Formats: sequence, structure tokens, C-alpha cells
Amino acid sequence: MKLLITEDYETLSQITADIVLMKWAESRRVNLALTAGSSPKRTYEILADRLQKVNFDRNLAHFYNFDEISLKDQEYGLTMQALTKELFQPLGIEEENIEVLDAKNYQDYDYQIAEDGGLDLVLMGIGGDGHFCGNLPEFTSFDYGVYRVPIEKGDDLYKFIDEASPHEPGGEMVTFGPQTILAAKELVLIVNGEKKAAIIKQALEGPITEDIPASVLRLHPNLTVILDQEAASLLD
Amino acid sequence: MKLLITEDYETLSQITADIVLMKWAESRRVNLALTAGSSPKRTYEILADRLQKVNFDRNLAHFYNFDEISLKDQEYGLTMQALTKELFQPLGIEEENIEVLDAKNYQDYDYQIAEDGGLDLVLMGIGGDGHFCGNLPEFTSFDYGVYRVPIEKGDDLYKFIDEASPHEPGGEMVTFGPQTILAAKELVLIVNGEKKAAIIKQALEGPITEDIPASVLRLHPNLTVILDQEAASLLD
Amino acid sequence: MKLLITEDYETLSQITADIVLMKWAESRRVNLALTAGSSPKRTYEILADRLQKVNFDRNLAHFYNFDEISLKDQEYGLTMQALTKELFQPLGIEEENIEVLDAKNYQDYDYQIAEDGGLDLVLMGIGGDGHFCGNLPEFTSFDYGVYRVPIEKGDDLYKFIDEASPHEPGGEMVTFGPQTILAAKELVLIVNGEKKAAIIKQALEGPITEDIPASVLRLHPNLTVILDQEAASLLD
Amino acid sequence: MKLLITEDYETLSQITADIVLMKWAESRRVNLALTAGSSPKRTYEILADRLQKVNFDRNLAHFYNFDEISLKDQEYGLTMQALTKELFQPLGIEEENIEVLDAKNYQDYDYQIAEDGGLDLVLMGIGGDGHFCGNLPEFTSFDYGVYRVPIEKGDDLYKFIDEASPHEPGGEMVTFGPQTILAAKELVLIVNGEKKAAIIKQALEGPITEDIPASVLRLHPNLTVILDQEAASLLD
Repeated sequence: MKLLITEDYETLSQITADIVLMKWAESRRVNLALTAGSSPKRTYEILADRLQKVNFDRNLAHFYNFDEISLKDQEYGLTMQALTKELFQPLGIEEENIEVLDAKNYQDYDYQIAEDGGLDLVLMGIGGDGHFCGNLPEFTSFDYGVYRVPIEKGDDLYKFIDEASPHEPGGEMVTFGPQTILAAKELVLIVNGEKKAAIIKQALEGPITEDIPASVLRLHPNLTVILDQEAASLLD
Repeated sequence: MKLLITEDYETLSQITADIVLMKWAESRRVNLALTAGSSPKRTYEILADRLQKVNFDRNLAHFYNFDEISLKDQEYGLTMQALTKELFQPLGIEEENIEVLDAKNYQDYDYQIAEDGGLDLVLMGIGGDGHFCGNLPEFTSFDYGVYRVPIEKGDDLYKFIDEASPHEPGGEMVTFGPQTILAAKELVLIVNGEKKAAIIKQALEGPITEDIPASVLRLHPNLTVILDQEAASLLD
Repeated sequence: MKLLITEDYETLSQITADIVLMKWAESRRVNLALTAGSSPKRTYEILADRLQKVNFDRNLAHFYNFDEISLKDQEYGLTMQALTKELFQPLGIEEENIEVLDAKNYQDYDYQIAEDGGLDLVLMGIGGDGHFCGNLPEFTSFDYGVYRVPIEKGDDLYKFIDEASPHEPGGEMVTFGPQTILAAKELVLIVNGEKKAAIIKQALEGPITEDIPASVLRLHPNLTVILDQEAASLLD
Repeated sequence: MKLLITEDYETLSQITADIVLMKWAESRRVNLALTAGSSPKRTYEILADRLQKVNFDRNLAHFYNFDEISLKDQEYGLTMQALTKELFQPLGIEEENIEVLDAKNYQDYDYQIAEDGGLDLVLMGIGGDGHFCGNLPEFTSFDYGVYRVPIEKGDDLYKFIDEASPHEPGGEMVTFGPQTILAAKELVLIVNGEKKAAIIKQALEGPITEDIPASVLRLHPNLTVILDQEAASLLD
């Protein structure tokens, strides 16, 4: 594990933006699965600025959503809607470079990734409960590839979506499982803020257990963890 | 996971010998941790034959014992004695290319490996109880780097050593832990024979759990599993 | 450069077959460009035998012809006809895993390879004049990507084809150029027999020059050269 | 070749600093050969700032000078003096992480690099005459490993050194040759400013020839070229 503790969120974001940029600029097809959400917000702003200032062949990178939460009567789910807004539109990523995971195609998706040449880079955050991608405690198992979690009215996931989106929750979440993620060539985990200090400590220094799904990322031979000082404040 | 099911032990051994040979022949330092024991017996015979017939620079590969079981009043433990007899002597590996792990140096060994450039290849078998290297069920934890297990008169390990060696058991086993092994660039697991069919099925198709330590190997992005038909006979 | 000098052609062929096998068995798409001709003849026989004895997912490898010589009134040129007979048919490679280079598509082919994820392995021989792929002295330049050489009645290439094939020569040769080949992740050059001893000495120990096109292969950071003793007999 | 054209020198420097940073932070030994001189000046300033703001294990990277020009009665030559001032001192690199090439040890240096595990990253600029490292037109050959060029009073190199240093020139230059550099795992070439526009055009778009030594870098499968707009202004 490559561990970098940065003074602040800005530095974390600059470094992460350049990691993504350098993969994106590869002179052959690369497959990138980049997270939506608050942690990479500044990363994507810096990346948008880089794209104004740096010219390179942008067409060889393909972008994957690593999970999806279906929304009732919506073509795209929660993740694709967020990625479109936060990443694909501001960065001008063409539709033909976007590979969509959803409840209709998830069953063959591990093989699809293999046929595409494998994932080159996965950029993730960690949830307050230790989840990464859609791998929630009590729902995930380290041996899962891409899998489906049903959502039912009244369960925690339903309530979460209901708050997070103006749309009514659909019937399922699909996500790259631990096997899918750990088969990638390179993983980057970014974590910022005091409120993540306790969970990242557990994930990096506690036991590797399905109760803290992100703890399994430590087993990958090519994992980079970038924390700001607040997130790192409880580490030994 | 790259899975090859071979018709017989001979084919398994030929392929494995060539995998080791091609790493050994790299034109830069490579670090190899190769198992002792019955599974690679024929591999090493074929490798010895290759060394008679193939000329290359042999001095850039360094060889590591990935576990050690101390023996009373013996300079080398059970593993080093076995490797010396089965691998180092028949293949003419020079002392300066052998990196010894033992109870005296195990505490800094993960860092030593990092300073040496990391492990390039680990060749392993699986035990009937699902262990790999010295990672025994009930004793290992997925987050362990190199660690020590005390051996006491009367416990299972003591009895095992007592039968396996003419020498009296010493006080401890040390072993590369799951973290150490999964940090390597490439892993190869070879398994042959009917008596391993049940455990390899559990390791490859069951849950990833510390109860079957070798199950964790599936999470490595660059794992090759080579089975003969007998060992593979129970797989789905 | 990784240099292996084998006692005989059989050993050279066994090792080469296993190199190809292990790439073919990767658990993600890999792109292989394998030579036709006499040098790999025994390699492909051994590989055919391996395929009888080893079970793995064969569908993730794609096979490229790295050059083509057009033949009048023939759908496929000299190289594809040879590869079909020597490699694709005996090894049962499906049409959907074969990527055809020809005079119609060569102009975009470097970009096509990039979009396919790049070449993972190129297996080559060397010609008596130092050529590799279709890169002939006096016709190639180190900065060429995929390119076309016109063939005209009476020139050397025309005569060569006329003897090598029952069909009348077409109007052109196309070939992966030095840039295309050196952009691959791994190169393997196999050379056997006394009659190649002088040219391989020049290619490996002489100046790196367009007069001996294969000399440029030495600059690749991941080149393996496998010679039999006869081919190696003039090396220092 | 990965080609990035940046709006300005500042952006070029930021990206380059992060490339070096991420290699430096690897969790195993890495070997870095970083250029002295004007092109990376801002890169190293940004890197010094990064080191203030980012905490990681700095001890696993080793730093190599890729050429050296001896100075009369001086322990260190021109390059080591420059690197010490521009890179090693401001970035707090410990002596035990610095690997010195000089006229006394150059003959075994290619093998030394191989024993060290190979070069992981080489960061270079280009000279107005097309040289990279110490590979000058008329003095270098693509097949050279580490080699020595004698300096004699009155020749061009003597005059150059005489102007560049307060010390009297010594008797020789030693340098990593094209073979040494192209054996590295990753190459980065940075070029800025209008006065480099003509030579970088020749190096990237002209023939690959020993007359423009840097033209050979294009053959490396993992080369990144970062230019500012001025340097790129003459490219097609």
C-alpha cells in the first residue's frame, strides 16, 4: 500500500487529478472507473481545468460506473445521473466512451470487463460504514463479482435513496464486488475530513473483514491511499 | 484468476517449470519465493533439466523461503533444509542469491522485501487444511504481514514437525502472511492429486475466509492456478 | 534483453510454446501477433498438444497477422493463408478472435491496435537479411508505424512471392513497422539453425541500423531472445 | 508515445512533479534518474512544496545521476554538483539513497542497474542539438550502454564545461547510453520554450537517427512527452 497523507484537501485533489490525467492520456485503450460523490469533487474541478490547459488524445479512455442504484421510471440510476453531472458533462466525455452498468447487464459484466481488457484504474471513496463502491456491510462478501442487491420499501437503502434523489427509488442496486475491484490493475482510495477518521483507521489498521468492506482493499498489490490530515488524524 | 486445468501432473509441472524459468531469466533483479514440498517436486526436476539445456544469466534472481519452522540446535529450519535439498543444491543456486527468513529477522522482513524491490513471483501449494505458506487456519489473519507462531510441546504443529523431521522441533514458525504474499507482483498456485480436490474446491469456489486461508489468493489481480484433472475433479 | 541459448530446437520450441500459452490464458483480453514460417513450426505443434492437455478460457486472446503480402484474386494474402494453415486451424482459433491486417485497412491500423488495448505479445523470427515482420532492409525506417510497400513485377519481393506461393503476387505488402512493434508490451524473437548464426550476431552485437532491421529490437525493455546453439554459435 | 501539450510551463511542471511524486511514493524500492538543468527547475520547486505538504515513506526511492562530466580536482563532477544543489539538498534526499555514476565505476554500471532491479523512471530534457542525457550527436550510438567520452582541451565539450562551471574541466564525460535508457520501465521527456521548438519537431516527427539522439526515445513503449505550447508550436 502506498500511503500519502496530505496537508489539506486541495493537495489531495491536485495529486488525484494528475493520477487520473496520466491514465487518461495513455496511448492505448484504458478503462477507468471513477467514483461520484463529495470526495472527488475538487479533483474533478482541477481535472476540468487541466483539460482546458492540456491537450492530448482523449478518446482512448473508457469510463465505467462501478455501481448503480435504479430509480423508478428513470433511464439512468442514481450513480449515472451523478457521474453525468459531476464528471462526464463538465469534462466533455463522449457517450461512446462511457460504459454503463445497470440492472439489465450486470450478470455478464465481469466477463465484459475482461473482454474490454480489464480495469486499469478504480478511484474510490469510503463510506462512513466502511463501504466502497456499493459494497455495504452485511450485504457484501469478498468473493462477489458484480452482483445485485434488491431494494425494498422501508429498508435502509430505500430510505437513503429517497433522501438522496428527487426520484422514487427503483428495485435494486448493482455494484462491482470485491473480486471485480481487486482484479483491477490499480486502485486509488481518497478520503478527506474528520468525520472519516474513525472508519479509515478501522479500514487501514483493523482486521480485514466483510464488516468493514474497504478493509479488503489493503490486499491489493497496487493500492494508493491518499488522505488529508483530518482523515488521517487517528492513524497510528 | 488465470485457471489452467491440465490433463496430468507432468503437464502441470512442465508449464510451472517454464513460468519459473522465464522469471529467473529476467535481465534485472527478480525476487522469487518458491515452495518446498511434494507439489513442485517434478517442476524442479524439469527445471534442473532446463538448466542443463538452457544458458542464461542466472545471477540476477534472488530466492526467498516464505516460511520457516525452527528446529532445535539446527542452524537452518525445516523449510530451508528442504529447499536446500530440493531446489538450491540441485539447481546450483549460489548462497549470495538466497535470502533467508528466520525467527531472528522476521520482524523487519516486510520492509526488507520492499527494500529489495518487492516479490516478483511466489510459487505455492495448498495444504489439506487450506493453508498456504505457513498460514494455518485459526492462526492466520488476512491483515498479517510476516509473523511468528510459537510452537509448544504437544500442540499440533509440534507433532507435525516431529514426524516430518529427524530433528527436534524448535520454538516457533515464522511465515509470510497474507499481506506479504498478496503484495507480490505475481502468484502461482499449483495443486495436484485427488486428495486435494475437496480443499481446492473450497478455496476457489467457497467463501473467502480465514478458515480456508488460501481462499484469499483469489483476490490477487495476477494469480495463476494450475491444477491437474484429479485436483480439479470437484470444481463446478 | 533476456537472452536464452538452448541446447536444441526442441527446447527452444517448448519454452516458446509455454510463453504463448501463458499469455493466451490471461484472464482479460490480450492481443497476440504470432509469426508464421519455419522457426515457430515446432512451437505450434507443441502448443497444439498443450491445447489437448490443458483446459482454460481461450476466448479472451485476439490474434493479429503482423504483415500481409497480397495475392492476385485471393481474399487472403500470403501471411493469412500461412497462419490459417499453421496456427489458426490446427489450434482451433475462432474467426471472431482473428484480427486481419490487409491493404485495405493498414492506414488506420496503429490506432486500431491502440483502441484494442495495445499488443501484449509479438512473436517473431529473423530473416536471413535481418528483416523482422515485413521490415526489409532498404524499405523500412525506424520511425514507421504500419505501412505499405508496393510490389512490382520483376522486383525482388515479386520473385520471392512467386516462388513461395502457387498464386500470382498482388500489388503490395503491408507490415507493422518498427514503431508498431516496439510499442508492444512484450517481444519474443526465436532463431534456430546454423544459417541464421551470422545474421543474429549482427542483429544482437552489431550496430543498431536500418540495414539490419531486427537490430532495433534490442532497444525494447521487454525483449526475450531465444536461440538454439547453432544460431548462437557465432555470438561473443 | 503519450503526448501532452500544456498551455504553459507551470502546468507542465505541476504534472511532472506529480509523476515523480507518485513513483517516489511506491511501497517498494524504485530507481529514479532525474535530470538536472533548466527544464525541471520549476518541477523541483513544486516537488519541494509537495514534500512540505505530503507525508509518505521517502526512503524506498534511489536516485541516479544519468551522466557525469568530471571536473579537475573535484570529488563530484558537473552533474552531481548540479543535482545536489537543485534536487538532493532542497528535497532532503539522504546520501544512502543516492547512487553515483562516475568515471571510476561506469564500466560495470549497466549490470549494477540490473542488480538494483532496473530503472523505474527516467526524467529527461532535450538539448538544442537533440542530445538526451550525455548522448551527443556524433558521439553516441544507439547500441551503447553506459559509456565514456574523453574530453580534450580545446574540443567543444571542454569549452562548454569551461563556461558552465567555475572549475576546470576534467578528462571525461560518462553517460547512460541509449540502450541503458531504453531499458528503463518508464521515460518522461519534458521540453519547454520556443527555442526548443525546432529540435523537438525533429526528434518527434523526423527520422530516428543518431544525428538527433533523442529521436530514439520514440521507440520506447512507455514514453511520456510533455511540452509547453511554445515548444510544441512547430509540430504538425
